Amino acid sequence: MTLTVQTVLNRLMEPVEHIQNTVDTLKFGHPKMEVTGIATTFMATQQVIERAIHLGANLLITHEGLFYSHMDNQEILEENTVYFEKNRLIEESGIAIYRFHDYVHRYQPDGIMAGLIEALEWKTFIEKDTPTSTVVKIPPMSVSEIAEYVKDKLGIQFVRTVGELSDTCTRIGLLAGYRGGGTLSIPLFEKENLDLIISGEGPEWETPEFVRDAVYQGKRKALIVLGHAESEAPGMKYLAGRIQTLFPEIPVHFISEKPLFQVL
Amino acid sequence: MTLTVQTVLNRLMEPVEHIQNTVDTLKFGHPKMEVTGIATTFMATQQVIERAIHLGANLLITHEGLFYSHMDNQEILEENTVYFEKNRLIEESGIAIYRFHDYVHRYQPDGIMAGLIEALEWKTFIEKDTPTSTVVKIPPMSVSEIAEYVKDKLGIQFVRTVGELSDTCTRIGLLAGYRGGGTLSIPLFEKENLDLIISGEGPEWETPEFVRDAVYQGKRKALIVLGHAESEAPGMKYLAGRIQTLFPEIPVHFISEKPLFQVL
Repeated sequence: MTLTVQTVLNRLMEPVEHIQNTVDTLKFGHPKMEVTGIATTFMATQQVIERAIHLGANLLITHEGLFYSHMDNQEILEENTVYFEKNRLIEESGIAIYRFHDYVHRYQPDGIMAGLIEALEWKTFIEKDTPTSTVVKIPPMSVSEIAEYVKDKLGIQFVRTVGELSDTCTRIGLLAGYRGGGTLSIPLFEKENLDLIISGEGPEWETPEFVRDAVYQGKRKALIVLGHAESEAPGMKYLAGRIQTLFPEIPVHFISEKPLFQVL
Repeated sequence: MTLTVQTVLNRLMEPVEHIQNTVDTLKFGHPKMEVTGIATTFMATQQVIERAIHLGANLLITHEGLFYSHMDNQEILEENTVYFEKNRLIEESGIAIYRFHDYVHRYQPDGIMAGLIEALEWKTFIEKDTPTSTVVKIPPMSVSEIAEYVKDKLGIQFVRTVGELSDTCTRIGLLAGYRGGGTLSIPLFEKENLDLIISGEGPEWETPEFVRDAVYQGKRKALIVLGHAESEAPGMKYLAGRIQTLFPEIPVHFISEKPLFQVL
């Protein structure tokens, strides 16, 4: 039986009630296209798209948008040669590209967080899942030990930290992606009596400065910032495994990217 | 003659037409208070406030907000012990605290950018000032040479870069603070034919991923991310000098903070 793009999309959205306004749309390709191979990725960069084509995937599922804007702001792309070239590659290859962001975050538990927890091997330590965060209680480790553990498990080059590296932590809040801002993280610190938050990304003078003040006041709080991609790529890898289970006859790949930043 | 808080504020706002909705308000203290010492800072952390009090400054001028939110969102501070303690320190000391953000950015040229350019000693290289960015044309240097130069001039510990470190740059766009996002940076790259953007902070999968794609396509573009505080503190230091000129009889200090993040 032919597997269409729409069938795959329906299965992916199935666990969640219909979302009215969503960025999760088919950006390229047609819903009736036959799917012969699937790839997932954090963000469909030019290199990721080429790799998907090379692997024979004709449906690429990307967590973040193709063109550097959450709401697909087209104005920033006017007369933009990088955009033209990337767009041409996609159109000429005929690959279908679906953004899968809002729905996977509304899985219960959050599908992206589930992948992060699995990569960290902290599933047995989960105390609480909320729609935007997960609280774990781990055996005592220092901030620097946790930083090294996290880098090792996620295979990442560096993390940025705020707080005393020698402080011992057991209660940790995890927030993937752009949930590291003060609106979510600051109340979570207090409400859940956290020693540490590990997040993807957030404005620098919100949560990081809150932690700086807390530490200066003698409170034991710390922050580890992973990077946005670093915090969400494991979720898209995890998703590839789920999709493979749903469609065992179709080859499914997860495509990773190189680290985005270099630290000098 | 007695110098009041309001007189200082009026002089600071003088170069700019009245701004209707602004975050620039007197957060603590009274407009009629007599000013006996002034301090400026990027962000009034607990430590900065204590230092200002210690220096005898009773008017502290901070670029960013006191409580980790651009729009002073009070909800995140409910039952928050860090907030309580910081608030009590301020109230008990009687120090006046003024946020000076929107007005200084509307100076012509932008008062924060002026400080950054001065710290980088690139004033003679300015090609163009816009309300949100400055374009400089410098003698050819590689990305890594520029990164080291910038770290040295600004006294910062690390920068994050995207692109080829050996690429030669001459045309550079500078964007201070949270202007590193795709909306401003991506069109600027194209319109001004830039080799490099140096910015404070911005969402990670906007400009950085654009630069990654550009480089992968063989285009010579690069990005250096300084950090939000790192990009704007020089502007507040520069402001201290201006204020000292306006009020030569009053002691004026710039108060710096330690680096916010540690890289592990």
